[in-house]
Amino acid sequence: MKRTLFTNGLVYVGDRFQPLDLLVQDGRIAGFPGPGARADEVVDLKSRMLVPGFLDLHTHGGDGVDVNAATAEDLAKIGRFFAKNGTTGWLCSILTDTPEQTLWCIRQAREAMDAPITGARLMGIHLEGPFLAPEYKGAMPEHLLQKGSAELFRKYQAAADGAVRYMTVSPEVEGVVEMIGEIAGHITVAIGHSGADYETACAAIDAGAAACTHTFNAMGLFHQHRPAIMGAVLERPVMCEAICDGRHLHPGSVRMLLACKGWDRVVAVTDSIQAAGLPDGRYKLGVNDVVVEDGDAKLASNGVRAGSTLTTGQALKNLVQFTGEPVERVLPLLTRNPARLIGMDHRKGSIAPGKDADLVILDGKLNVTATYVAGVCVYAE
Amino acid sequence: MKRTLFTNGLVYVGDRFQPLDLLVQDGRIAGFPGPGARADEVVDLKSRMLVPGFLDLHTHGGDGVDVNAATAEDLAKIGRFFAKNGTTGWLCSILTDTPEQTLWCIRQAREAMDAPITGARLMGIHLEGPFLAPEYKGAMPEHLLQKGSAELFRKYQAAADGAVRYMTVSPEVEGVVEMIGEIAGHITVAIGHSGADYETACAAIDAGAAACTHTFNAMGLFHQHRPAIMGAVLERPVMCEAICDGRHLHPGSVRMLLACKGWDRVVAVTDSIQAAGLPDGRYKLGVNDVVVEDGDAKLASNGVRAGSTLTTGQALKNLVQFTGEPVERVLPLLTRNPARLIGMDHRKGSIAPGKDADLVILDGKLNVTATYVAGVCVYAE
Repeated sequence: MKRTLFTNGLVYVGDRFQPLDLLVQDGRIAGFPGPGARADEVVDLKSRMLVPGFLDLHTHGGDGVDVNAATAEDLAKIGRFFAKNGTTGWLCSILTDTPEQTLWCIRQAREAMDAPITGARLMGIHLEGPFLAPEYKGAMPEHLLQKGSAELFRKYQAAADGAVRYMTVSPEVEGVVEMIGEIAGHITVAIGHSGADYETACAAIDAGAAACTHTFNAMGLFHQHRPAIMGAVLERPVMCEAICDGRHLHPGSVRMLLACKGWDRVVAVTDSIQAAGLPDGRYKLGVNDVVVEDGDAKLASNGVRAGSTLTTGQALKNLVQFTGEPVERVLPLLTRNPARLIGMDHRKGSIAPGKDADLVILDGKLNVTATYVAGVCVYAE
Repeated sequence: MKRTLFTNGLVYVGDRFQPLDLLVQDGRIAGFPGPGARADEVVDLKSRMLVPGFLDLHTHGGDGVDVNAATAEDLAKIGRFFAKNGTTGWLCSILTDTPEQTLWCIRQAREAMDAPITGARLMGIHLEGPFLAPEYKGAMPEHLLQKGSAELFRKYQAAADGAVRYMTVSPEVEGVVEMIGEIAGHITVAIGHSGADYETACAAIDAGAAACTHTFNAMGLFHQHRPAIMGAVLERPVMCEAICDGRHLHPGSVRMLLACKGWDRVVAVTDSIQAAGLPDGRYKLGVNDVVVEDGDAKLASNGVRAGSTLTTGQALKNLVQFTGEPVERVLPLLTRNPARLIGMDHRKGSIAPGKDADLVILDGKLNVTATYVAGVCVYAE
């Protein structure tokens, strides 16, 4: 029953910073005690900001580890790297791979989820494929792409013991809209990697798709006579992933997305690869060779952009810079919104009594100076 | 001091239909009298809807008359045609032409504005050019396009005695952003016919441009790395014209625009040409030959779409069909929003005491059965 008191700082509660003390007990937020609260440990915030930990729903790795080749211990290594950048929870994005390798990845993830906390918590799995369209495959091996199959999905989900929380599919692939109808009650489905026309994208949304994967990237763009998947996701109330590294999206595109969707329907993701946190050079993304130059990751084979080297902490700074808005307006894009998208907002994404004590301390320059997961300090400057 | 009482119908007040009586006196709305009000004339609405007259800010003519060749009497003829379709106020859109012809058009418009009311009121002039880009000139004669010049604008405005209320310009044309800064305090500036990049379009908006001309048509479209003028107008709080004929914009594009901009920032326009209300055939739009097939108007020279044969009454029906929303939600797109865009909402665009008695009676199928301008019946079924 260890009690930790965070004091002498500004706590992000109710979308604003308040000069409160925060008490954590048994890994959860216990409340906001008045003066004289007793605790086993006191954390002096030194006037810094205490905010909800960042949640990253779309990432392929970092610090040299590629999710598609990662053991459970490798995934923990990613988690420790993420913690330094303010991430407290993440989904590992498994790229389209052979069924055997996909099942191996799922088992590693399942094991990592149950391991003791040493960094950001692996909250579950994001399957990026295999139900994707060749036309917008990005880094997906084309021969491994599959038609929509709820049966294959259920096989993966059974192996994961329910840990697949999120999946990206292309609406135009045969059988996918029907598959969405079957599975959308169980997991969050995103549409992307897609040249779907407007009508097909709308059918996927009507069937239950609730999000759009790395919006505007790897998808058909709007034309006034053929609104395409882009038109559908801007029109319909789905949530939209945004890679805010300044490369995947022009800062104006980020602002446009926020203006069109509203600030409660945009989810900042990194889509980072193993090169995140490391210098330029040659890396892997699934089966692909990737070259990183000036932090920009591209497939060695054809120069197509392949993930990012972005971190959540940098995404926060970029969003403040791109929008000119105060950090309190930007924070939900990295916290509450992703929690809501995968149905975990009852436990994560905000600071409130009873929720997981996943917390980040930010200094005045928005640098992460400490990270707590379930009340445990997993990173300190 | 003639008093006209509209009774026994549903009056569109406060964005909804209410079973009120409406009293008109001296061309203005006098109020909503209780039972027993005295009047010189009583109009039995027979349970129909009484709504604000439609305002069309962008049209090149109808019923065989082309604005660029129209005498004052011709303009009145357009007004009578418009009245049949529910339009009570309009701006005549003068296409890019020679300075001499433009000045002649302006004088005809000025004269028509002061003539007795026989149909929809000509409220002023929309100059569509000459400060436009060759790349997206549409039906504009390229050799007559001009660099931005506040001096030339002021010459036209002086000839119009201040009646130029609205002007479409291309932000990327030399001198245009500076010109906007000089004139935006005096008239409403719209951007369009443009391949402007995002930054230039934003500069035009920052300088005072408040609207976008036939949004998504004749302009550069969005790309995530180059958001272009489309990204700027979706991001920034400008109002957006929309041609809702089902040809210029896919119905999904109209819904997307409404979702992105909000229903208070979209202005339905017709962009109609002289062929509106007439059968298929060969027509003129300014100096251009136009062929109309199946109601679709295209330049004879190159097949580029050139205006529409849409009416405001049809636009209302289309919007109800495209959006699936009730007519009370759609009406502001044709009434309050255009009034607000040109700063005439203190007099037009809604039914309220003191405002101009510009009224339309709609039956249950949204057909226009009668039209009143300044309290005068200018059309009855």
